[in-house]
Amino acid sequence: MIETDLELLRGIANQLRIHCITATTAAGSGHPTSCLSAADLVAALFFGHMRFDPKNPKHPNNDRFILSKGHAAPLLYAAWAEAGFLPVEQLGQLRQITSDLEGHPTPRLPFVDVATGSLGQGLGIGVGMALAARQNGLDYRTYVLMGDGEIAEGAVWEAASLAGVRKLNNLIGIVDVNRLGQSEATAFGHDLATYRRRFEAFGWRVEDVDGHDLEEILEVLSGVGLGDQPLCILARTYKGAGVSFLQDKDGWHGKPLSKDEAARAIAELVPTARSAAGVQIPAPSPMTPPERPVPAAYPPLHYQVGQMVATREAYGNALARMGEVDQRIVAMDGDTKNSTFAEKFAKKFPDRYTECYIAEQTLVAVAVGFSTRGFVPFASTFACFFTRAYDHIRVAGISRANIKLVGSHVGVSIGEDGPSQMGLEDLAMMRAVADSVVLYPCDAVSTEKLVEQMALRQGLCYLRTSRPKTPVIYNNDETFPIGGAKVLRQKEGDRVTVVAAGVTLHEALKAADRLAQEGIGITVIDAYSIKPLAADVILNAARRTRNLVVTVEDHYAEGGLGDAVAGELSAQGVQVHKLAVRELPRSGKPDELLARYGINADAIVARVRALA
Amino acid sequence: MIETDLELLRGIANQLRIHCITATTAAGSGHPTSCLSAADLVAALFFGHMRFDPKNPKHPNNDRFILSKGHAAPLLYAAWAEAGFLPVEQLGQLRQITSDLEGHPTPRLPFVDVATGSLGQGLGIGVGMALAARQNGLDYRTYVLMGDGEIAEGAVWEAASLAGVRKLNNLIGIVDVNRLGQSEATAFGHDLATYRRRFEAFGWRVEDVDGHDLEEILEVLSGVGLGDQPLCILARTYKGAGVSFLQDKDGWHGKPLSKDEAARAIAELVPTARSAAGVQIPAPSPMTPPERPVPAAYPPLHYQVGQMVATREAYGNALARMGEVDQRIVAMDGDTKNSTFAEKFAKKFPDRYTECYIAEQTLVAVAVGFSTRGFVPFASTFACFFTRAYDHIRVAGISRANIKLVGSHVGVSIGEDGPSQMGLEDLAMMRAVADSVVLYPCDAVSTEKLVEQMALRQGLCYLRTSRPKTPVIYNNDETFPIGGAKVLRQKEGDRVTVVAAGVTLHEALKAADRLAQEGIGITVIDAYSIKPLAADVILNAARRTRNLVVTVEDHYAEGGLGDAVAGELSAQGVQVHKLAVRELPRSGKPDELLARYGINADAIVARVRALA
Repeated sequence: MIETDLELLRGIANQLRIHCITATTAAGSGHPTSCLSAADLVAALFFGHMRFDPKNPKHPNNDRFILSKGHAAPLLYAAWAEAGFLPVEQLGQLRQITSDLEGHPTPRLPFVDVATGSLGQGLGIGVGMALAARQNGLDYRTYVLMGDGEIAEGAVWEAASLAGVRKLNNLIGIVDVNRLGQSEATAFGHDLATYRRRFEAFGWRVEDVDGHDLEEILEVLSGVGLGDQPLCILARTYKGAGVSFLQDKDGWHGKPLSKDEAARAIAELVPTARSAAGVQIPAPSPMTPPERPVPAAYPPLHYQVGQMVATREAYGNALARMGEVDQRIVAMDGDTKNSTFAEKFAKKFPDRYTECYIAEQTLVAVAVGFSTRGFVPFASTFACFFTRAYDHIRVAGISRANIKLVGSHVGVSIGEDGPSQMGLEDLAMMRAVADSVVLYPCDAVSTEKLVEQMALRQGLCYLRTSRPKTPVIYNNDETFPIGGAKVLRQKEGDRVTVVAAGVTLHEALKAADRLAQEGIGITVIDAYSIKPLAADVILNAARRTRNLVVTVEDHYAEGGLGDAVAGELSAQGVQVHKLAVRELPRSGKPDELLARYGINADAIVARVRALA
Repeated sequence: MIETDLELLRGIANQLRIHCITATTAAGSGHPTSCLSAADLVAALFFGHMRFDPKNPKHPNNDRFILSKGHAAPLLYAAWAEAGFLPVEQLGQLRQITSDLEGHPTPRLPFVDVATGSLGQGLGIGVGMALAARQNGLDYRTYVLMGDGEIAEGAVWEAASLAGVRKLNNLIGIVDVNRLGQSEATAFGHDLATYRRRFEAFGWRVEDVDGHDLEEILEVLSGVGLGDQPLCILARTYKGAGVSFLQDKDGWHGKPLSKDEAARAIAELVPTARSAAGVQIPAPSPMTPPERPVPAAYPPLHYQVGQMVATREAYGNALARMGEVDQRIVAMDGDTKNSTFAEKFAKKFPDRYTECYIAEQTLVAVAVGFSTRGFVPFASTFACFFTRAYDHIRVAGISRANIKLVGSHVGVSIGEDGPSQMGLEDLAMMRAVADSVVLYPCDAVSTEKLVEQMALRQGLCYLRTSRPKTPVIYNNDETFPIGGAKVLRQKEGDRVTVVAAGVTLHEALKAADRLAQEGIGITVIDAYSIKPLAADVILNAARRTRNLVVTVEDHYAEGGLGDAVAGELSAQGVQVHKLAVRELPRSGKPDELLARYGINADAIVARVRALA
């Protein structure tokens, strides 16, 4: 790069700084000093290195940029404004309720692929995007800008390890080592050597730079793509860099400048600031990804009613079946694929399967990354281990990521492995994710049909599968729309409506048979769609059973099926009696545990009798 | 160690192997081959190195042993049986519902400090135990046995980093590198050099050993405590070691042997197996920790009604106030202490504060570790970031750990920072933890009193605090028992009972004033204890308002206050109308957001009018 270009980039960096200060001061909140440390890096990336179409942030072969240190959002917005995508005046609306320029980036903005702001998530998502580039045969690169504070997060090292194992030389992690965290200095300050050893040990090529020296930054960036390792750029920076009274000073995290302070700061920056208008940003290579159309239909099912099949195995069958006609589908698992049955897909389509090893945060992050590039990723592990990735799932909800999560081994019905392996909070956890879909099938047919629904539905969907084999109760042509429910038993004079799902649905059917012998009729509903719930179906049934409902679930009493039904129908005068796991369970045989925790046919019979 | 001793230890290792095979075959499930790889390591630790009283696993200065690879539970049980604590015959009851020898270890057994089985958690808990040793002036050491598969978990590297930073030379991590994961080989196989570089980069001293060579193992163990770094022992092992047809073979993970296979395996082991009876296990040093009595009372409060104080700041005030008289209290935070106000404690009692940096899994794990050694740890971060540690919290519930979690910045009322920083699922998440307590105060007085209650209560407690300042509404001498609620407005003829907590309680009071002007009376209840819920108080009030209840909460509609009230009271015929955040929120001013998402006084007034 020639000298004048460097001067221009330095000027653009200062212009970005001015935007960040101006916007946060106008907003009265924000993190200007965290923007200033990274301004030179961002100027170099956006106006001296990355290949993208600034008029079309969705171009499939644009280089991707993830601002993992999401609190530097104003810097990202300023870069896209200077690149010409946003009117510069809009920056003044930062953090206003009427503006999509939120406090931390969200995909309400077209140039944001994923929400950031919960630190440590960007690199794993970047791994997913980099893998997706290979899958699609595209040459875009994925740049992830992290703070130094955030690389204390374990999620960063999970992702770093997988990137090293997969030799992702199309992934670039940049660490803005500004030394100062939110509440105090980081543990390592400007000790770049320690960070270097870490990334190298995790299989990365590492370059150190002075993060305020544009020549050095560009020089290092010119080596992007060399070798077969991911590249980590450790940038020694100063928080508040470029403004004398902010630079490297404690006590400035997350504080906007007063108007006077902002004026003083800007006065320091203005003399060298330059607009980026007219900078030629290199276009992405003219490559396009293969077409991956939504299939007109999936191949048919061939189960027999009464056949014993675990829903977890039906999940594997579904994925292997659907994968043949739906090239959008990719899958990943965290070293449990022989238990979740994701291995049925992995064996059939090894090129479309990513082994994430025992690293559930990365499992979800990789799925999110794939989803941003047009794939429909199915990520599976034991239901309980998705708790390890709850923050990632929460933020995927904010990103409106099109990911499909499948948690196996739910509830006490897993048996002898004991409470650490039992998913007993997954319904509560997944229901409380923005716009999530939560599904819980009871047999192989409904499982397979719901996996189809997940693939066809835009957004975050969760499916809960069980360990034990259960009988097929539905015909192969039955349909299972999201938000529906099946009324399996119902007749005039029924005394109570029993709402169940998964293994307890079969207990409810047994209970219905036994109660019928006593002359007590119950309506039995398969609530396979926990969220959205088929409230109308349950309400109609309840109205015919004196408004009496019993829910029964292999889940803790809090936040699951019972709370969902009560929370939606209590306002209508429906009385919901919950059967659920109400204490910390222990190891034992599945049937023993269903009995001990009061969610088997006996418990249903007893409760119905008491209400009849 | 002399040659005969080595022979004895080798024999004990094989005896442990026999126990593991026998027990898992009898149980018909379990992970015998994962036990066999670690049998020599465990034999060396328990019968050739660690200092502990085998008759008293609770001795305060016993060396601690965490089986982080919890699926090797039979090996742990066998070791304590051979040490004389358990009758050997009990091993035959493995995994039975009548036995505490569960599929994965839980503290139902006195020699288990923490539940394991969700991989990657042991090391962080070990960091907490090692820090607690220093705090208590004890010389016990903490040994954490991990699998190689599990060190893919980011939580391991968070913990490793903090151990390095704190130079915990009383912490020993042992990695059983048996090469085979559950579903396939690990990414690194027997490449110990890669693992060495990683641990060294994270500040550890590393030793490689042949994990089946007792002489090498003991030699390395003799160096425990040297230097000022934590020690990592990388043990090259074989899954199924010691049995010809199991050793280093694929397809044996999590499978018990048939009776015939077990007989063949045991026949190979019997000739060299030796009982550990008679082995002299070194006693712990005769040191005792300082007394840390429960205080008779905490110093009084000095708020004025009407004073504006954020509940998050009241939390900091409480901790600083209580810390003076309660030496059990320690605190930790994840680089948010200036926002959660944990810094008030950290500044006053720097020796009792642990900075965990931006690593929430380690934050919770360190708290769990301290709790096992008699401390009352308070761990704080933004409520939303506890989602990062949900698996740790879930397992802490299984451990019945005495930890206190405090999540700040809940709900849309944080304002401009936007959805990634808003705790909107924490009530759902925390309610669904076994035996948890979930608290949500609305003012400074109730906050401080609830922090006292948390310190006095055994078990996992969560307190939710808010960012905005709210007026003090309670007198300093008011009491707030866990499981209680306050009826703040109530009179004859009230039309509706409004149940609120936190910021929405103040909205409910405003609504009550406005509705009173229209001649509509409402009962207002402060449901500061979300779990256990004061169902009786709410029910009594509801009975006097035509069974009509409106709940209002700064939380998603799923799994929070509304579901809790509906889930408990719908069966009693109470009709619960929920006001809650029902869509993905955005940045804006707190008042704008409370209005937009329908949880402010206007929304309450409108709903009550519709019901009145």
